[in-house]
Amino acid sequence: MMDFLEEPIPGVGTYDDFNTIDWVREKSRDRDRHREITNKSKESTWALIHSVSDAFSGWLLMLLIGLLSGSLAGLIDISAHWMTDLKEGICTEGLWFNHEHCCWDSDQVTFEEKDKCPKWNSWSQLLISTEEGAFAYIVNYFMYVLWALLFAFLAVSLVKVFAPYACGSGIPEIKTILSGFIIRGYLGKWTLIIKTITLVLAVSSGLSLGKEGPLVHVACCCGNILCHCFNKYRKNEAKRREVLSAAAAAGVSVAFGAPIGGVLFSLEEVSYYFPLKTLWRSFFAALVAAFTLRSINPFGNSRLVLFYVEFHTPWHLFELVPFILLGIFGGLWGALFIRTNIAWCRKRKTTQLGKYPVIEVLVVTAITAILAFPNEYTRMSTSELISELFNDCGLLDSSKLCDYENHFNSSKGGDLPDRPAGAGVYSAMWQLALALILKIVITIFTFGMKIPSGLFIPSMAVGAIAGRLLGVGMEQMAYYHHDWAIFNSWCSQGADCITPGLYAMVGAAACLGGVTRMTVSLVVIMFELTGGLEYIVPLMAAAMTSKWVADALGREGIYDAHIRLNGYPFLEAKEEFAHKTLAMDVMKPRRNDPLLTVLTQDSMTVEDVETIISETTYSGFPVVVSRESQRLVGFVLRRDLIISIENARKKQDGVVSTSIIYFTEHSPPMPPYTPPTLKLRNILDLSPFTVTDLTPMEIVVDIFRKLGLRQCLVTHNGRLLGIITKKDVLKHIAQMANQDPESILFN
Amino acid sequence: MMDFLEEPIPGVGTYDDFNTIDWVREKSRDRDRHREITNKSKESTWALIHSVSDAFSGWLLMLLIGLLSGSLAGLIDISAHWMTDLKEGICTEGLWFNHEHCCWDSDQVTFEEKDKCPKWNSWSQLLISTEEGAFAYIVNYFMYVLWALLFAFLAVSLVKVFAPYACGSGIPEIKTILSGFIIRGYLGKWTLIIKTITLVLAVSSGLSLGKEGPLVHVACCCGNILCHCFNKYRKNEAKRREVLSAAAAAGVSVAFGAPIGGVLFSLEEVSYYFPLKTLWRSFFAALVAAFTLRSINPFGNSRLVLFYVEFHTPWHLFELVPFILLGIFGGLWGALFIRTNIAWCRKRKTTQLGKYPVIEVLVVTAITAILAFPNEYTRMSTSELISELFNDCGLLDSSKLCDYENHFNSSKGGDLPDRPAGAGVYSAMWQLALALILKIVITIFTFGMKIPSGLFIPSMAVGAIAGRLLGVGMEQMAYYHHDWAIFNSWCSQGADCITPGLYAMVGAAACLGGVTRMTVSLVVIMFELTGGLEYIVPLMAAAMTSKWVADALGREGIYDAHIRLNGYPFLEAKEEFAHKTLAMDVMKPRRNDPLLTVLTQDSMTVEDVETIISETTYSGFPVVVSRESQRLVGFVLRRDLIISIENARKKQDGVVSTSIIYFTEHSPPMPPYTPPTLKLRNILDLSPFTVTDLTPMEIVVDIFRKLGLRQCLVTHNGRLLGIITKKDVLKHIAQMANQDPESILFN
Repeated sequence: MMDFLEEPIPGVGTYDDFNTIDWVREKSRDRDRHREITNKSKESTWALIHSVSDAFSGWLLMLLIGLLSGSLAGLIDISAHWMTDLKEGICTEGLWFNHEHCCWDSDQVTFEEKDKCPKWNSWSQLLISTEEGAFAYIVNYFMYVLWALLFAFLAVSLVKVFAPYACGSGIPEIKTILSGFIIRGYLGKWTLIIKTITLVLAVSSGLSLGKEGPLVHVACCCGNILCHCFNKYRKNEAKRREVLSAAAAAGVSVAFGAPIGGVLFSLEEVSYYFPLKTLWRSFFAALVAAFTLRSINPFGNSRLVLFYVEFHTPWHLFELVPFILLGIFGGLWGALFIRTNIAWCRKRKTTQLGKYPVIEVLVVTAITAILAFPNEYTRMSTSELISELFNDCGLLDSSKLCDYENHFNSSKGGDLPDRPAGAGVYSAMWQLALALILKIVITIFTFGMKIPSGLFIPSMAVGAIAGRLLGVGMEQMAYYHHDWAIFNSWCSQGADCITPGLYAMVGAAACLGGVTRMTVSLVVIMFELTGGLEYIVPLMAAAMTSKWVADALGREGIYDAHIRLNGYPFLEAKEEFAHKTLAMDVMKPRRNDPLLTVLTQDSMTVEDVETIISETTYSGFPVVVSRESQRLVGFVLRRDLIISIENARKKQDGVVSTSIIYFTEHSPPMPPYTPPTLKLRNILDLSPFTVTDLTPMEIVVDIFRKLGLRQCLVTHNGRLLGIITKKDVLKHIAQMANQDPESILFN
Repeated sequence: MMDFLEEPIPGVGTYDDFNTIDWVREKSRDRDRHREITNKSKESTWALIHSVSDAFSGWLLMLLIGLLSGSLAGLIDISAHWMTDLKEGICTEGLWFNHEHCCWDSDQVTFEEKDKCPKWNSWSQLLISTEEGAFAYIVNYFMYVLWALLFAFLAVSLVKVFAPYACGSGIPEIKTILSGFIIRGYLGKWTLIIKTITLVLAVSSGLSLGKEGPLVHVACCCGNILCHCFNKYRKNEAKRREVLSAAAAAGVSVAFGAPIGGVLFSLEEVSYYFPLKTLWRSFFAALVAAFTLRSINPFGNSRLVLFYVEFHTPWHLFELVPFILLGIFGGLWGALFIRTNIAWCRKRKTTQLGKYPVIEVLVVTAITAILAFPNEYTRMSTSELISELFNDCGLLDSSKLCDYENHFNSSKGGDLPDRPAGAGVYSAMWQLALALILKIVITIFTFGMKIPSGLFIPSMAVGAIAGRLLGVGMEQMAYYHHDWAIFNSWCSQGADCITPGLYAMVGAAACLGGVTRMTVSLVVIMFELTGGLEYIVPLMAAAMTSKWVADALGREGIYDAHIRLNGYPFLEAKEEFAHKTLAMDVMKPRRNDPLLTVLTQDSMTVEDVETIISETTYSGFPVVVSRESQRLVGFVLRRDLIISIENARKKQDGVVSTSIIYFTEHSPPMPPYTPPTLKLRNILDLSPFTVTDLTPMEIVVDIFRKLGLRQCLVTHNGRLLGIITKKDVLKHIAQMANQDPESILFN
């Protein structure tokens, strides 16, 4: 392995766009760098300080990422809140107040009246000075749709013009990048700025999307940009990916107020190479981010998330049956969503549809807004909806969902007993059922459009609605039929047996699990949301069922499906390769192909090599002792070769086309009047990975995964026979899974 | 790779005791097995059921492990509680009641009197019918020491006679086993039975040790034993290690009532190969175990742990200074403890001391008991002590630690303001300081004796005492000097500024972190113990400082230090190998050694091979095309070779010493009257791992770690040159770290 610290020629050791990095080389470079700094540190005080500051730069970087992503999340929350309310009206006291702030110091402090305060004016009040009657309703309706269209138009235009990478949730691409792929600009400053702005617009437009996934992208952009301030991370692709893993954890941490869940999410779902050192740093970044957000306090409740619930009603073992039902529902919804969404996205890619992103977004926004306004549960923002569904009804709750008939026979202060539902609950049930259908259908078409869109929140909303419906159903059943065998052992009359809010929570976990196939991180996030260990078992039962059901219908989670749709070279770490093929079945050249293109170590001229480079498109060439022996010496990358030859022709006196290229340590003495030789041992990788032709592919896949290889050479009885690249491996996996191997686009 | 499913000769593919497994081979075998079952499942319904039950057997196993280890933990808790109280007295109503149960239905319900109920008789009451006076004190003292000696004697004798592996905490050995080492009987049923019994005895004897580490060992024994019920796990060393990782998580989960922390502990501290599938299953096992323990309810408080605290007093940013001081203390204590304990253990190993384990235990027990009895904080069990130190003083608390002067000027019901300390607090402080010194000194000599002993609890106790002392100091300073600049901005008179219990908690985390070098799992465990996100930042600050300080004084945690002390072949996954050596510097043969011993693929006789086997002790031999070409064909294990030749000589007609051994696919037609050939291709590993001689050792170490190799062959320009075994790698690492390479004992 050459000494990269010297870096004699600029460009050697870097990567092209849309290429895979070589983890082994990057890690070696970092270790070389670290070694040099450590060695120097003994020489002078200044070098010692440099060494210490280098060691702590990782922690400083984490601190900065936490602060920046926490602040951005707070900014996004506050702006989105204000703009969502803008669709309904405006605060006369100050345009910059949202509905809640506007009415804070209002006299009407009761819950019922809190929506109506004199300073807050709906559009009908402002425009036609009334809030009553059909005309006012129509004005409000019209303004609602108008604002939604405006926001959506702005969002999609900004994305289209300034930063096409800012669309979607970003998690599939971040997974791919973390696995060692290069997409220049995907985590750049333009993406960050545009994504932050358009995320607010997209959320405010009332579309069925969430800000949680994109927040991960925003945090990763922060991480990537801040990497530029530190030498250690700027120049090393492997080290930078450690930082990005931590940034992803910080992103989830601020999205859900769940630092531990964020770290586990990063570990389980996003990251590829996650050493334990990174675990600790990620946790630090996630904590800093969460506390930054908390001190900004965007929701005004000293909590990190909008839907913090704090009930501690116990659940009964029998309730596992409905919880598992919710798990099945979540799994079915997840599988259905992934299939239909992927089918629709494929249609968008392959047909005319993809050419008109602005029109698509406007149409979907218009449909969403028009259908959403009449139903109060779809009109409110999705996170508010989830918050209301998770909530357990208190005595004073005045929302329709809590319109129970009170008999006041319970001891005050304690838990409220199960009560018969009033008319409000029944009408709320109908509205929720309609909202469920709308959300299910519209989310399929929304996720994947050219605007920032996450699907944590829509998935959770679907599950929460289904869960609440089931929960209220169970509650009423328990109230009216507490003598049934299934109830009478544990649910006496007048007791608080069923908590519909818990059902909503379990349903949300089930649906989110079905779509993303998260497991531990899902349970931990939900546990951090609710702050009680007592509901871990219901959540786990639902998440487990949901994952099993969804896996039975299709192995891939939504992110993996989108990675495959885009043809990124992502080597899934979770799936075992289960086929009995050998390395010789996968390697190039295939049986009837021409022989493998190799370079010899001491007999090829510059011209020979240039011919090979121009005639082939391989990204690297093995170097052998001689064509006859096929004994492997090393591996040289095409990019390094081109740059070195170009450089030599320019600078090195006398290197011409007939100059012989030497990859050996010493070139033999040349007779006089022959052109000077070109020595290229410094760009030769002297420790290429090799496997034998009879190595089972399962082991080869394992090696590629664990060591993060780009390519691997194949030998037979000590002779070089062929080469396997990451792309070959991925194509082979696709072929074995009866998928189109040509769907893998990049190397 | 051969088809292990056929398994033609019994014994091929198994391992000797104290040997390292080949992860690649084990995982291949499991995949072959899985493939066969999947293929068969299409043939018949029965095979399909078999396939499904095989898929779910992992979950069933986790359930059983959770149930069994939860039950055992409950049993241990209850017995230890009863036997600890036995040292002080006995319940006349029923011998099987411990002090607390005995006095439950007593009339004296106030806190002050709860220790004195008529049914509970101290030994002096029983023997000399009085509780007053010096003589009664001496009788109690004497009985206390006597019982302690009896328990300790029983414990050490049982361990010595029945199960020597039952001693210690077991975590170093479990780490080694999980990394792929074989220690037969270490996780067997005798170890389980004896460890369970002696753990109770050791804890009850009042020695400075905890039951948390050994509980991990107990849970792993459960996991290992239950593996025998499932074909999938019984026969495969790699799969079994997945189960053991989960069992370790269950062990910590019951030890601390922290399922998430348990999983993270297993991931961070114990496990080596931890695929994400295992993460989810471990979580399940940990949850089941925690809930089993909770339904047994050993502490009678519906909590999982004895020291559950639930105060939510906010902390102030300035308090980070004392928290960081506690972190420094924890780091210093950790480094000190590890050094002195290892030095003492080394002394025990190398001198006469190691030959008298019973006497050693009795002496330490006697010293501990004699010094502990006069001080009430050392007389009580360590977990009770921690619980009391963590506790925040309420108005009604009557313990000496809470003997503050009440002024009753605060609003009732809210937080208690800081109050001046009374005489009780000051005397408690002195006693705690003495207890601190005793614990610090005696723990060093206790850990490593021939009895089950964990050091989570003693470490936490040291930290909790130091923290409480500092906390009370801060509290008094804030009370008397609330006008000082550091206080006056946030601490007004009559406010509750400082919570000494929180300081104890932070101190406990710092000391535990200093000893074990846990990071995320430590914070999560402490967070689960306290049940509040608000203290994560103090805990993290202390844990971080403690780790930095301790790492600066010595890189190894206590478990790694003990692994090295015992010479186990453990390849640390956390430390980067930072030296610039190459594979050729490490491989055997060394420069002036005789050539590498190889077998040829088609020219050696049975006798030749037998000679090589008897003359060398290598655990395997490379097979080459011919001695001249040194082109590598494969690798064959010594054990497999011996078994196969023996088997062939017994069963295969006519195989004699002059028979030629063929490792090729086809043996050439032989002239008549030559002895029949022996074909051994089926035991040949056709995909041995190779690296070039110029590969940096850092990459070689990485390959060994990530792929779990036992050995790796070294080539130069396609010719076989040498071999590197795991032992060579470990010896090289030891040498580079200026340690004795001969300390690595096993391969």
